[in-house]
Amino acid sequence: MKIHNTYIKRCIALAKNGLPAAMPNPSVGAVLVHNDSIIAEGYTSAYGGPHAEVNCIAFAKANTPELIAKSTLYVSLEPCSHWGKTPPCADLVIDSGIKRVVIGTIDPFAKVAGAGIKKLMQAGVDVTVGVLEKECQEVNKRFFTYHNEKRPFIILKWAETANGFIAPATRDKQEPVWITNTLSRQLVHKLRSEEMGILVGGKTVIEDNPTLTTRDWHGSNPTRIVIDTQGNLPKELHIFNNEAPTIVLKDSDPKSICKELFGHNIQSVIVEGGAATLQGFIDAALWDEASIFTGLTNFNAGIKAPKKTSQFTLQSTQHIKGDRLDTYTRSDS
Amino acid sequence: MKIHNTYIKRCIALAKNGLPAAMPNPSVGAVLVHNDSIIAEGYTSAYGGPHAEVNCIAFAKANTPELIAKSTLYVSLEPCSHWGKTPPCADLVIDSGIKRVVIGTIDPFAKVAGAGIKKLMQAGVDVTVGVLEKECQEVNKRFFTYHNEKRPFIILKWAETANGFIAPATRDKQEPVWITNTLSRQLVHKLRSEEMGILVGGKTVIEDNPTLTTRDWHGSNPTRIVIDTQGNLPKELHIFNNEAPTIVLKDSDPKSICKELFGHNIQSVIVEGGAATLQGFIDAALWDEASIFTGLTNFNAGIKAPKKTSQFTLQSTQHIKGDRLDTYTRSDS
Repeated sequence: MKIHNTYIKRCIALAKNGLPAAMPNPSVGAVLVHNDSIIAEGYTSAYGGPHAEVNCIAFAKANTPELIAKSTLYVSLEPCSHWGKTPPCADLVIDSGIKRVVIGTIDPFAKVAGAGIKKLMQAGVDVTVGVLEKECQEVNKRFFTYHNEKRPFIILKWAETANGFIAPATRDKQEPVWITNTLSRQLVHKLRSEEMGILVGGKTVIEDNPTLTTRDWHGSNPTRIVIDTQGNLPKELHIFNNEAPTIVLKDSDPKSICKELFGHNIQSVIVEGGAATLQGFIDAALWDEASIFTGLTNFNAGIKAPKKTSQFTLQSTQHIKGDRLDTYTRSDS
Repeated sequence: MKIHNTYIKRCIALAKNGLPAAMPNPSVGAVLVHNDSIIAEGYTSAYGGPHAEVNCIAFAKANTPELIAKSTLYVSLEPCSHWGKTPPCADLVIDSGIKRVVIGTIDPFAKVAGAGIKKLMQAGVDVTVGVLEKECQEVNKRFFTYHNEKRPFIILKWAETANGFIAPATRDKQEPVWITNTLSRQLVHKLRSEEMGILVGGKTVIEDNPTLTTRDWHGSNPTRIVIDTQGNLPKELHIFNNEAPTIVLKDSDPKSICKELFGHNIQSVIVEGGAATLQGFIDAALWDEASIFTGLTNFNAGIKAPKKTSQFTLQSTQHIKGDRLDTYTRSDS
């Protein structure tokens, strides 16, 4: 099993390259191994493009076609068996003469869910399933959370001053107030680019008039989601420009928001404020990760950062030229 | 320039996939962009295999051949212009009809060093050079340090107890004493797999009889390097088994070690102890990064961890089920 583990780990590393472009499809990594040596690799192309298995086998066809049928295929997720935007990968594997496939985890998507494995086995392929399952699911945590929990994967994000404020008491609306440095803000654009949706409360939109785009990173802008319980947000706000789609929600209850975003096929959402909106998700225990930036600035007074519960489990700390980024996951306690 | 930046960032992310397998070659990322959309990606295959540009253009040829000549090629490192294990990439770019190339940084390797750029320009290709240069060099920090500084890139690594010991005072040699948990130790195997060499002092080899391999990670074992000033290390030690090559050094002076490893074409080395060996590199300011694990264990007495100087600049902290991994870079102060 150790040898399986090492190649599945490589599949996981490769799968990360396909995100977020593959979404709403999961991103998969595939390697072809001959004689204990990787002869080809692949990962899922942008949505609508070839899957990991196709890219991997195409590479082998171009370089060492004679070895394909003698190789073992490792994939982090079960090969698909249905016609989506591309032909079924299970058929390609069978047609390539591959006799051994090692699969990290089953695909929870109803149209696959074991059918790809069944197809391979029926064709006489020797299939191993369930190697580093948890880690393979982690890569597609958005996709798995969405299908298994029927809600988006939720990431909380805020920036606080060294003395714990997320906004000053008074401000000049013409001048944005930055708590963190430009590198941290660029990183926020990267984080945004990884999610399908970005959510803010109505008060934040009026106070800050943010654009909520990913100007400083490659990749698409997430769908902007704004809570407007009064239904009176001015149409001139930046979030209503044509740089990205915008969804307006009438209900501020986290559970209702999850339900509505599930209906909109939003597999993941980054919640960027304000304090009341963030606290709502924290108190409802409806979140999965939190990215909290701490800058060097101090405010004399202002809006206090959300209160962290005992569910906040620190995973890592990054130092960004004086700023700090603490990343938490939620643990049920 | 912003748009260049975003695609070069993607090249950098892709280049990381090629390491460490591409070494001693640098690993490069390439993307073909048509109409502000990525149509193909590639990164350097394992040493001797196709380069990033070849993989990228092959992908485009298989999927959207009609767009290649109308696209811009982004590469993190200058395309090669000489015959190595593969034909020159600059020729391939020209033959593909690509009219615009954006290059992150020049290749410092004497056989390339501007010649690839010159070849492209002479063929009438519009070339931009120097986009996120520092970041593009960072990916191949081992390769750049080796060629520019004429010494390996040096990573210090040790594990210390919660109260600062790296080894107990007394021990039973039959039983290894672990300071960190199994996940941390697996991570060490990953770190080892990323370097060309792993160095330990003679005392550590006799005390611990380590294997110094990457058993729990895919990738090759680094070359084992051991200091044996007395020339009396027993041949039965694990480091002399046939799992990896082993170099025996007679001199413990960090400067001499660097010189000798440069001669052995070792582009990077992880120094794993013991305390005196690590302290030697620290005091000589001959190191680039340090990975320091801290476990939950306490020892009553033993060997103290090396003394960190003011050059240690904390970059990040990872929490590994109770253990902590602090990663430092060296800053000249």
